Amino acid sequence: MTSLSHIILEPLVRKALEEDLGRAGDITSDSVISAEARAKVVMAARQEGIVAGLDAAELAFKLIDSGLAIKRLKAEGVEVKAGDEVMEVEGRARSILSAERVALNFVGRMSGIATLTNKMVKAVGNHKARVCSTRKTTPGLRAVEKYAVRVGGGMNHRLGLDDAILIKDNHIAIAGGVAIALRRAKESAGHMVKIEIEVDNLSQLKEVLEEGVDVVMLDNMSLEDMAAAVKMAAGRAIVEASGGVTLERISQIAATGVDMISTGALTHSAPNFDVGLDFKAAA
Amino acid sequence: MTSLSHIILEPLVRKALEEDLGRAGDITSDSVISAEARAKVVMAARQEGIVAGLDAAELAFKLIDSGLAIKRLKAEGVEVKAGDEVMEVEGRARSILSAERVALNFVGRMSGIATLTNKMVKAVGNHKARVCSTRKTTPGLRAVEKYAVRVGGGMNHRLGLDDAILIKDNHIAIAGGVAIALRRAKESAGHMVKIEIEVDNLSQLKEVLEEGVDVVMLDNMSLEDMAAAVKMAAGRAIVEASGGVTLERISQIAATGVDMISTGALTHSAPNFDVGLDFKAAA
Amino acid sequence: MTSLSHIILEPLVRKALEEDLGRAGDITSDSVISAEARAKVVMAARQEGIVAGLDAAELAFKLIDSGLAIKRLKAEGVEVKAGDEVMEVEGRARSILSAERVALNFVGRMSGIATLTNKMVKAVGNHKARVCSTRKTTPGLRAVEKYAVRVGGGMNHRLGLDDAILIKDNHIAIAGGVAIALRRAKESAGHMVKIEIEVDNLSQLKEVLEEGVDVVMLDNMSLEDMAAAVKMAAGRAIVEASGGVTLERISQIAATGVDMISTGALTHSAPNFDVGLDFKAAA
Amino acid sequence: MTSLSHIILEPLVRKALEEDLGRAGDITSDSVISAEARAKVVMAARQEGIVAGLDAAELAFKLIDSGLAIKRLKAEGVEVKAGDEVMEVEGRARSILSAERVALNFVGRMSGIATLTNKMVKAVGNHKARVCSTRKTTPGLRAVEKYAVRVGGGMNHRLGLDDAILIKDNHIAIAGGVAIALRRAKESAGHMVKIEIEVDNLSQLKEVLEEGVDVVMLDNMSLEDMAAAVKMAAGRAIVEASGGVTLERISQIAATGVDMISTGALTHSAPNFDVGLDFKAAA
Amino acid sequence: MTSLSHIILEPLVRKALEEDLGRAGDITSDSVISAEARAKVVMAARQEGIVAGLDAAELAFKLIDSGLAIKRLKAEGVEVKAGDEVMEVEGRARSILSAERVALNFVGRMSGIATLTNKMVKAVGNHKARVCSTRKTTPGLRAVEKYAVRVGGGMNHRLGLDDAILIKDNHIAIAGGVAIALRRAKESAGHMVKIEIEVDNLSQLKEVLEEGVDVVMLDNMSLEDMAAAVKMAAGRAIVEASGGVTLERISQIAATGVDMISTGALTHSAPNFDVGLDFKAAA
Amino acid sequence: MTSLSHIILEPLVRKALEEDLGRAGDITSDSVISAEARAKVVMAARQEGIVAGLDAAELAFKLIDSGLAIKRLKAEGVEVKAGDEVMEVEGRARSILSAERVALNFVGRMSGIATLTNKMVKAVGNHKARVCSTRKTTPGLRAVEKYAVRVGGGMNHRLGLDDAILIKDNHIAIAGGVAIALRRAKESAGHMVKIEIEVDNLSQLKEVLEEGVDVVMLDNMSLEDMAAAVKMAAGRAIVEASGGVTLERISQIAATGVDMISTGALTHSAPNFDVGLDFKAAA
Repeated sequence: MTSLSHIILEPLVRKALEEDLGRAGDITSDSVISAEARAKVVMAARQEGIVAGLDAAELAFKLIDSGLAIKRLKAEGVEVKAGDEVMEVEGRARSILSAERVALNFVGRMSGIATLTNKMVKAVGNHKARVCSTRKTTPGLRAVEKYAVRVGGGMNHRLGLDDAILIKDNHIAIAGGVAIALRRAKESAGHMVKIEIEVDNLSQLKEVLEEGVDVVMLDNMSLEDMAAAVKMAAGRAIVEASGGVTLERISQIAATGVDMISTGALTHSAPNFDVGLDFKAAA
Repeated sequence: MTSLSHIILEPLVRKALEEDLGRAGDITSDSVISAEARAKVVMAARQEGIVAGLDAAELAFKLIDSGLAIKRLKAEGVEVKAGDEVMEVEGRARSILSAERVALNFVGRMSGIATLTNKMVKAVGNHKARVCSTRKTTPGLRAVEKYAVRVGGGMNHRLGLDDAILIKDNHIAIAGGVAIALRRAKESAGHMVKIEIEVDNLSQLKEVLEEGVDVVMLDNMSLEDMAAAVKMAAGRAIVEASGGVTLERISQIAATGVDMISTGALTHSAPNFDVGLDFKAAA
Repeated sequence: MTSLSHIILEPLVRKALEEDLGRAGDITSDSVISAEARAKVVMAARQEGIVAGLDAAELAFKLIDSGLAIKRLKAEGVEVKAGDEVMEVEGRARSILSAERVALNFVGRMSGIATLTNKMVKAVGNHKARVCSTRKTTPGLRAVEKYAVRVGGGMNHRLGLDDAILIKDNHIAIAGGVAIALRRAKESAGHMVKIEIEVDNLSQLKEVLEEGVDVVMLDNMSLEDMAAAVKMAAGRAIVEASGGVTLERISQIAATGVDMISTGALTHSAPNFDVGLDFKAAA
Repeated sequence: MTSLSHIILEPLVRKALEEDLGRAGDITSDSVISAEARAKVVMAARQEGIVAGLDAAELAFKLIDSGLAIKRLKAEGVEVKAGDEVMEVEGRARSILSAERVALNFVGRMSGIATLTNKMVKAVGNHKARVCSTRKTTPGLRAVEKYAVRVGGGMNHRLGLDDAILIKDNHIAIAGGVAIALRRAKESAGHMVKIEIEVDNLSQLKEVLEEGVDVVMLDNMSLEDMAAAVKMAAGRAIVEASGGVTLERISQIAATGVDMISTGALTHSAPNFDVGLDFKAAA
Repeated sequence: MTSLSHIILEPLVRKALEEDLGRAGDITSDSVISAEARAKVVMAARQEGIVAGLDAAELAFKLIDSGLAIKRLKAEGVEVKAGDEVMEVEGRARSILSAERVALNFVGRMSGIATLTNKMVKAVGNHKARVCSTRKTTPGLRAVEKYAVRVGGGMNHRLGLDDAILIKDNHIAIAGGVAIALRRAKESAGHMVKIEIEVDNLSQLKEVLEEGVDVVMLDNMSLEDMAAAVKMAAGRAIVEASGGVTLERISQIAATGVDMISTGALTHSAPNFDVGLDFKAAA
Repeated sequence: MTSLSHIILEPLVRKALEEDLGRAGDITSDSVISAEARAKVVMAARQEGIVAGLDAAELAFKLIDSGLAIKRLKAEGVEVKAGDEVMEVEGRARSILSAERVALNFVGRMSGIATLTNKMVKAVGNHKARVCSTRKTTPGLRAVEKYAVRVGGGMNHRLGLDDAILIKDNHIAIAGGVAIALRRAKESAGHMVKIEIEVDNLSQLKEVLEEGVDVVMLDNMSLEDMAAAVKMAAGRAIVEASGGVTLERISQIAATGVDMISTGALTHSAPNFDVGLDFKAAA
């Protein structure tokens, strides 16, 4: 089971709270609600999907007021339907309201990514292909978004520029060809680093397979070419499909026999997951 | 014309580059491309919309390599169509490729927001209503996303919890009613702070207007009630519609005569704007 | 009642402790006092005034040593006289002495501002005018100083450049006149943003009132002109007096009928509040 | 001649700009002034005193817009009179106005400290005593304020808890006496560290001088006792007077023959130096 | 050729300068040397080895004073002998002396690592084994030290906990055996992630090879066992030797036929490279 | 007894954890070990020496998982032999393994420095000389390394450029001689600042002693000259030997009668102290 260390998460939640509190804090709650007022609220899903980001939400509440009592009503990563309650928060009313938006913004974004990923994974069905995200993430939130993809059942591709080699068309063009690019990469890469190369057509794939490589990325190929590529690779390299991946088309792509399907949409275009905070009682 | 100071922007671009370079930098370019290789590339739109984030993109390239030469081919905020070139970058090939993803991630997200905002603004057409975003922004990127909304022709609502008072249903419930909440807010608010209150129905609106307030937010009202509310307000308060705002429905909402239409979708669910980097020449 | 979130406060206290501990910590206490020695001390006012900054002081002690026991003897914002004890601290003697100066520096500065503000507020007496601070704050401490003003009974003006519009003489000069400046501001300002404009004389005020604006700032006007300005405004705009505000003169200014009196002195020239730590017992 | 590295200064100026620009920047200038408008302004003293902080002001302008042209009209640390122009800034009007307040806040505070320090130094006159500040500085600004004291002709006492040993009354009480405290300090102190001890009366001084120490601090002694202390010390230790130091009394203190006079007022209660920005021309 | 982005390097150099300048800067140079004095100095090796860290040194000088003129006399990564001059710096004498120690500290540490690595690489000679470092790096400097290893001709192992899987003895013990640990790792690992497992003896190796894995680490094995392990692996996994790696023994280890030799000593125990700054002329 | 505040230490441990966890955390433990698995481990020395850094290790474990139970088996600064257990950690197995490397890296480096320092101190034996470190520290870790020196029984020299004056050969050359340099330093130095000057030979020493100074540094002198220098100084200045300090030679240097012996090797070339984590039980 995947996880996201609060060493990584806490500075991001803190920054989000600072951004929202600004230079004078929650002037609405400070003026309208008495310091002693207490409340009990629940965070509830307003749509179906996979819930993610509960640690972030809890941190938002706890960083504002360590005296808030939090109860998890759903576990991270489970499937929920509209109306399901996922977390209960009880304590000083001002504190709850001051942290509310940041908590919901994290859960909304992270659950949105997990939910879209999960739909993709389900659409792949029994095919062996696994779904993975790319580096097309929101600036500053890569660790959080990569984690949300994993919660949704997806895999991570590279985390950044430094943990694996991915030779793309521009690299090949500037290096002067597939063969020379691959040779340089192999010479330089450490033994813990995988090498992937992007190919646009089957003849490029043939050249690549002859040189040898860990992973090939089929860039924007037709379904027919993908199927042919899988056959040509014949297990000599992991085959990754990329480009034009939609919920509608992903099952067809998976049916070609590719090992991996990668798409930036998981992180850059996942719609927000609708979630809100419902007032239960003046506690 | 709106702007976004690099005092605000630069730390975010720097953080995004650190996140992508990790602990060993761009190991693909370092291994595959010679240090001397030079290239000329253009950033090109792959869809139509409003382009935003060019300062961020330029900063990404310049922070990686101050020797890169950048030419703006489109101005920030203009309308582009698929294929339009927006920026030319020339210099060390390694530097360009190392900064590419961060530059595109900013432009993709910011143009996505500006483009969706602009569609909303156009859908409102000649009605007087103005479109504005909410605090439902990506954690850590509020300044950037609020700016992108402005680039798209939208307005900002509150920037955070501290620059205006917005009394929502939970505040009213805990405070013990509309009247007491409003009175407390007025007593406490500074003279440079506006006060808004959320109302769910017309009888609440009546009570609010009698107390007096700067702005009323009609929360998830029917089109008929919105029209009635505008009539009831009769200029005594700015009227803001919120909830259920879609591209399809916004023109009908505007037709009710409201002054403002606010929606979190501008920032939390805007799909990425498709933009890429095309290799032009080994410069 | 106002508050200052520790999300905002804690990084500032931490920075102050880092600044004081330097690269080797409290070498006096480390050398002179045994690690086991315990003490009980009280923080005591050495003058009369309004005490502010107790959260910061408590944080300073707790961040150095979470084992210190703190008892509040006075509440934040109350009036104290010389000799009054405000806080008791008990625990490891080294820890108390290491945090002492930072704790006192916060309380000294914040109480100084609250005390001066309170004197101004009292000098206004029964006049309706409210006292507010400006952006003339110590670099890096705006949130803290604006809070201290509120504790003293004052109000905040703008928190920064982005939460309200204030058109000053230089803006008018460069824009080409009052009318054009105001029109541009209204067109651009969001519906949650107030607009204020500075006027130097009554004829400017007349022009401004005709254009319409939320707040007018009377800049360095004579008492007579202020009274005339209040009459001319006749409730069409909030009237703020600025310039030449002293403890001696503020009651006369208030007597002119202005709504607000703003002065940078509250934050940039408030003398330190005298407060010290008294050794009670080797606990 | 003293200096303040921009390695130390730049993060503070940057933080002050971030604090002022908030989440949307200078919305007044952005709305009222066209992006192309240019201006020439001068920073001018509105009182007499010692000007300090010009590097900070220049940094504020340059960090907002590196295209601004800055001319120094007065050198850092010189004496100015009301009306003297100290710096000329020319370039984009928006940029100048956005940086103005931060630039002035630094110059106002730093010149205020330098000016008060200089008055103290002049009041000492031909006596040998030197004036120095304490650790009673604004949280986060110690380096800046200690520098301003030096610009004004004063000296620094300890920069923090770690660069020298200062044994105060509480240390002595907890350690169990002057002799044991001093012996422990000497044993532990590195050879580059000076040791000072606070004494309240002449018999304590006698004991201290017998033990031997680098510096003695006479705490709140009468002028007579100070003179007697100087005689008793007879050059065996540097003698520092502390407590009750005012502009009126400092010359009398100096006349007792002490070597150093230290006071927290230099940094914690120096009134702001009045300085403003005057519009010269649309450049 | 490897590189280290200044996006990664600059914050570390800046931090080191802040740490050295403290709260008052270089008080020696400020007092002893006039602001106008200029100098020309050269950085010279005082021993033979591989020079690394010149970018860091240049940054240290430039961050202190962008007016300093720097000339590289040796390229990064070349072999030098005692007395060789590697960099010339000319400009304000105070600036040069203020940055000197930080510049030398980086070059001393980084060249020390590069030099030790290079000795190891040379000791391996014509054997195929490559030398790599571990995660035993100085806290906060991993990117810098991993880079210095590459400059010396070594390879990187994992950069952190997140870029590859390395199953060690404790993981196996807690998981309940080699087979279950490996199966879980394969199921969870993304397609761009390599898996390595530590084995203590040949029977463990046999089990591991049957399960299949990318890399096996032979932990503290005898030379005989290593040779047997290489034979047993027979190309089915990359073979890495670890433990007891010294300059004396590394050639024997390499002779066993292993692919990789990893050692923490490269980063945690490399002696400093002796380098100094020689005064050439008052420029 | 010396100490290192967690105000200083915690940000460094946090940074080291962030560096190791990267963007996806400990993917080995997350995949191989169940979230519920618990373990008990002990940190054990694998060599003899002085153990230091236990606070850092404890912080590393606690920051990853505040639920880990830590027991100290050895006190900071005591002498241990190979096999001695110093700390027991019990709790979630994943947490322990994720924090292990950072904890060990701190203890390895800090104990390495403390151990080397202690050997030097012991080699000095009954001579009065004290051993101290220099500013040749690892960038960013000065406070930590200076502390480790103190734990080992050594003293600190300057902490940075700002806490004492040390006039070196280059300063003298640029200033124009020993006498002028010393006079300027004395005039400028505060009364809490010590002044040291480097001398290369006995005639320079003579000149320096005539001017008067707190400390003289004998730079790379022969043993004979050191002895002569001590005689010449005759208590008028503290005498510090520097250059060519090795474990072999330090006793001879001490025998010359110098007061202090300083060497960069304590911090820049101390070999890592060998320490590991042993699995005790599935707790």
